[in-house]
Amino acid sequence: ARPKVGYFYSGKSLLSVMGSFIKNMSVMEVKSKPVIVSEENTVYDSIVTMFLEDTGNIYVQNKGYLSGIVSRKDFIKVTLGNHDIKNLPVAMIMTRMPNIVYVESNESVYDAAVKIIHHEIDSLPVVEKIVLDDKSENMKIIGKISKTTITKVMVRIGNE
Amino acid sequence: ARPKVGYFYSGKSLLSVMGSFIKNMSVMEVKSKPVIVSEENTVYDSIVTMFLEDTGNIYVQNKGYLSGIVSRKDFIKVTLGNHDIKNLPVAMIMTRMPNIVYVESNESVYDAAVKIIHHEIDSLPVVEKIVLDDKSENMKIIGKISKTTITKVMVRIGNE
Repeated sequence: ARPKVGYFYSGKSLLSVMGSFIKNMSVMEVKSKPVIVSEENTVYDSIVTMFLEDTGNIYVQNKGYLSGIVSRKDFIKVTLGNHDIKNLPVAMIMTRMPNIVYVESNESVYDAAVKIIHHEIDSLPVVEKIVLDDKSENMKIIGKISKTTITKVMVRIGNE
Repeated sequence: ARPKVGYFYSGKSLLSVMGSFIKNMSVMEVKSKPVIVSEENTVYDSIVTMFLEDTGNIYVQNKGYLSGIVSRKDFIKVTLGNHDIKNLPVAMIMTRMPNIVYVESNESVYDAAVKIIHHEIDSLPVVEKIVLDDKSENMKIIGKISKTTITKVMVRIGNE
């Protein structure tokens, strides 16, 4: 596929058109499948899951809602620390709310990329907020956007 | 910045123009600074370096040339294995040639993204090949392209 003859862009206007394009691409179009464990899962089992699924971040759930995130860095710290990781629940080492950075379904690939770079993280859960009868706000995990997802978008654009 | 009025693209032609753009963007324009250690460095010191520099991959050099790559996954495996990581040289656990995937200075951001996704890796050293008097080919590390670099390119495009 080649650009149509007769089109001409200054670098500036092409970039702004490209900018609009990725600001209009929804996270819902490109999200990947998250790997989820429950809070009671041990650190050891979570590490095994991380290798089997070849993922950098695992999301943790409590009663069906997002409660934490663990990364490869968290796992390195805890394995260095001589802990009994076969009995240590992943909930002991995970990052919890309000420190979890996430995106909602109405956000764009650009919004996700900005959050990943700004917060220096590898992935964001895509969540749907649910307000329960007791007015508490909970987050259902519906996907994942990572640096891998963004890199795949770049490959997809280049393949056209 | 907004697209100029009067331009119209079918999804297809816009994508192909965007595709050409990232195929023409050189890795040299966007490469980041690599973190490099020597083969004699211990695994423990390399892990400390990884945390201090907040990087996912460390490149290993021997006599000034690329000889290996270590990742967070490699570190998790070795820390799980009860090794004496304060005495174990990083050369014992690194990935070596010919299994190192790299890019050269004439390659594009698109080429780099394709290699990262195809080989399921987090980063690529940007190298300059040097043929020595004995005809051996060696690689000088001149930069790094990672999923973070690609995500930053996406943010830069969106900011225009």
